[in-house]
Amino acid sequence: MNFELTRDYVERLREVVEARDEATAVTMLRELHAADIAEIYASLTIEEARFLYLLLEGEKASDVLAELEEDDREEFLRVLPSEVIAEQFIHNMDSDDAADVIADLSEEKKEEVLQYLKDVEQAGDIVDLLSYDEDTAGGLMAKELIRVNENWNIMTALKEMRKQAGEVDEVFYVYVVDDDGILHGTLSLKKLLLATPQQRIKGLYKPDVISVRTNAGSEEVASIMSKYDLVVLPVVDSIGRLMGRITIDDIVDVIQEEAERDYQMASGISADVEPTDSPWMLTRARIPWLLIGLLGGIFVALVISRFETDIKINPQMAFFIPLIAAMAGNVGIQSSAIIVQSIAANTPGIERTARKLAREFLVALMNGVVLGGLIFVYNFFTTDTLALTFTVSLSLFGVIMFASLFGTLIPLLLHKVKLDPALATGPFITTMNDIMGLVIYFLVGRMMYGIF
Amino acid sequence: MNFELTRDYVERLREVVEARDEATAVTMLRELHAADIAEIYASLTIEEARFLYLLLEGEKASDVLAELEEDDREEFLRVLPSEVIAEQFIHNMDSDDAADVIADLSEEKKEEVLQYLKDVEQAGDIVDLLSYDEDTAGGLMAKELIRVNENWNIMTALKEMRKQAGEVDEVFYVYVVDDDGILHGTLSLKKLLLATPQQRIKGLYKPDVISVRTNAGSEEVASIMSKYDLVVLPVVDSIGRLMGRITIDDIVDVIQEEAERDYQMASGISADVEPTDSPWMLTRARIPWLLIGLLGGIFVALVISRFETDIKINPQMAFFIPLIAAMAGNVGIQSSAIIVQSIAANTPGIERTARKLAREFLVALMNGVVLGGLIFVYNFFTTDTLALTFTVSLSLFGVIMFASLFGTLIPLLLHKVKLDPALATGPFITTMNDIMGLVIYFLVGRMMYGIF
Repeated sequence: MNFELTRDYVERLREVVEARDEATAVTMLRELHAADIAEIYASLTIEEARFLYLLLEGEKASDVLAELEEDDREEFLRVLPSEVIAEQFIHNMDSDDAADVIADLSEEKKEEVLQYLKDVEQAGDIVDLLSYDEDTAGGLMAKELIRVNENWNIMTALKEMRKQAGEVDEVFYVYVVDDDGILHGTLSLKKLLLATPQQRIKGLYKPDVISVRTNAGSEEVASIMSKYDLVVLPVVDSIGRLMGRITIDDIVDVIQEEAERDYQMASGISADVEPTDSPWMLTRARIPWLLIGLLGGIFVALVISRFETDIKINPQMAFFIPLIAAMAGNVGIQSSAIIVQSIAANTPGIERTARKLAREFLVALMNGVVLGGLIFVYNFFTTDTLALTFTVSLSLFGVIMFASLFGTLIPLLLHKVKLDPALATGPFITTMNDIMGLVIYFLVGRMMYGIF
Repeated sequence: MNFELTRDYVERLREVVEARDEATAVTMLRELHAADIAEIYASLTIEEARFLYLLLEGEKASDVLAELEEDDREEFLRVLPSEVIAEQFIHNMDSDDAADVIADLSEEKKEEVLQYLKDVEQAGDIVDLLSYDEDTAGGLMAKELIRVNENWNIMTALKEMRKQAGEVDEVFYVYVVDDDGILHGTLSLKKLLLATPQQRIKGLYKPDVISVRTNAGSEEVASIMSKYDLVVLPVVDSIGRLMGRITIDDIVDVIQEEAERDYQMASGISADVEPTDSPWMLTRARIPWLLIGLLGGIFVALVISRFETDIKINPQMAFFIPLIAAMAGNVGIQSSAIIVQSIAANTPGIERTARKLAREFLVALMNGVVLGGLIFVYNFFTTDTLALTFTVSLSLFGVIMFASLFGTLIPLLLHKVKLDPALATGPFITTMNDIMGLVIYFLVGRMMYGIF
């Protein structure tokens, strides 16, 4: 299956759906991956989507359901009877996907769907999983896994594994537990392939396995899996009993969302939005940041109004207001972004704050000298007011120094008090930088115009 | 192995290293994961690092080497003789890690290390891998994998797999090829567990396997693996022969780097820097953006200077310069960020540009009316100049409309001409927004002060 081919295919299927050509659509759906079908859905009208969905067969229908965006899925499930949801969709799903789908249903529908499930073991697994917070290891894990007892020999283990394998989609590791279900290690499939039937598990397995507790946060899970290059991570309860496993594909989403959140924060979007969301949703996601910006702007206007007479006498002072404000903002965001990223990436937190500030101070000094010097040269040759020349370059230097240290300190402080350090790249801090920058500018200006 | 415990351990080891306590360090190293040891390295001085490295045993030494940051690793390898690199480090590595390490060596050292490798098959694999571009599927893949011929039966396959398993670290899938080595499908380990010895592979394997060509870009590989939730992706050559496999842990890094790049772009940092880089590196990464900002600021100053008489007569006009400039920038970045993310996430690109602009127009209209209205009310009650009140609110409305459409259009255009759309969140476009915003502001001002 080639990727370029799939893309063309997607385009063609969309045309077939628009033409309501059932026969061709069924043939095409058979050859498409569930993820591709889900992707097509996002671009269809509700009627087109329903037309296509009804043509899906058995397991593929539930795969597509699991791949749909949460909003689309909820909309879809709302119109289906609980019995259909249970028997046609949930029945074929892994416990983690099933729990995710059921968690989004109304309380009443949740109960109904669970009652309609014929496989009591599956229903039990789902109920167990529903008890965990969505953003914890417990909420992310699937119950399906293969476990063997350390006291078995390979032959017994293989027999038991065959029984368990039926319900597991992909076998990556075999987990080794003791009689109490406590996780002790993993048996790689390589070892299994190389062993003789009579060998005991006890002597074969790798004892030091990295695991997480059910209550570990999803970001912690993500950082452990990416740091140790893990594909699957077993989840244990507080006394070490094996409860489930998390596969990396679920974590890739967490990692992406985390990165997107920081990016959105830096761009002033407050909620998770897609460009295909309704204009109303988009406005709601954007206006809070803009309101803070507006308030900041009003505050800045009040600050500048204190210098009204200075401006009346030297209107050229007004020319460089945007430059000072923009540079304060830029430098502040740069400094914060570097710190935010290092906190997010968990880079050696061992470094002391003092050392970070010292380094930032040096960087600011270099930037300040270069940029302040350049603007000095520019103004020296283009204006005849020496006061303005000195004001702009000296205050630019001061603003760069201030914004750098402020931009470094704020995310560190936010992190210290357990707030999201990415807030530092938001409009609140930027406005603070603007205000301080302009105060510096006008005070320096008053001084310079007094001297020259 | 518990994560919290590991963290404490890391701290303690650092203290042991500082005290040069060899015996304790050796015991502690034995219990630590290579990734943790590599993390400690980043926070040590060169002498401390060397002290610790010499205490590492066999395979762990090469694992740690593979986990080190590229810069640290290069520094380290520079001082080691080629023979040691070959026999102590490369020898124990998977082909993909080995190729990565060797690729960073000088041409001369590269040759030497390859000659010192005793395992000719491994050397051959590495030479093959070195021929691919680093950022392609070929450059990312490892040669180690398990392949079976579709004509074998399970018994033969198991025998062959045992032979191959020796050199493969983790067996996730068994790949099925024909006599020409063309990839035809995968045999899940589950199927293998459930099959009888005489069954033929042909009837057991799953035929439609998603694969990529060796020349596929790393971002394409990342988007395929994350879209289809793959843990391993086989790589084929132009005629479909199985060449290697890419595991998701290598791709997690690509995904993270990609997200970080957009974030850094939005924060005005031009190169990939860590807060632990030297002040000189940090300055170099930040100053280009600031220079553009400075040029923009000078340009803005020139624009405002055209309105010097307006300011002299109505200095209050200057008060709201930062507000207008900041809002133009904020709105523009918000609009661009949403588009940049949707391009990066490959969300249904099927949507037409016209539709995107229409939606953005609606959002801008709502934002413009709300924010313009608020500032109108504020100024109406706090100032006595009706002209100013109308100027600020009308131009704010205009600026929001303009910056929204501009912010949406630019990344789409950049993407169209194959440039990185994230450039739109950089200072160049922000400065353009500033300029247009202030021109609108002063023109509206001139009109209003003419009327009232």
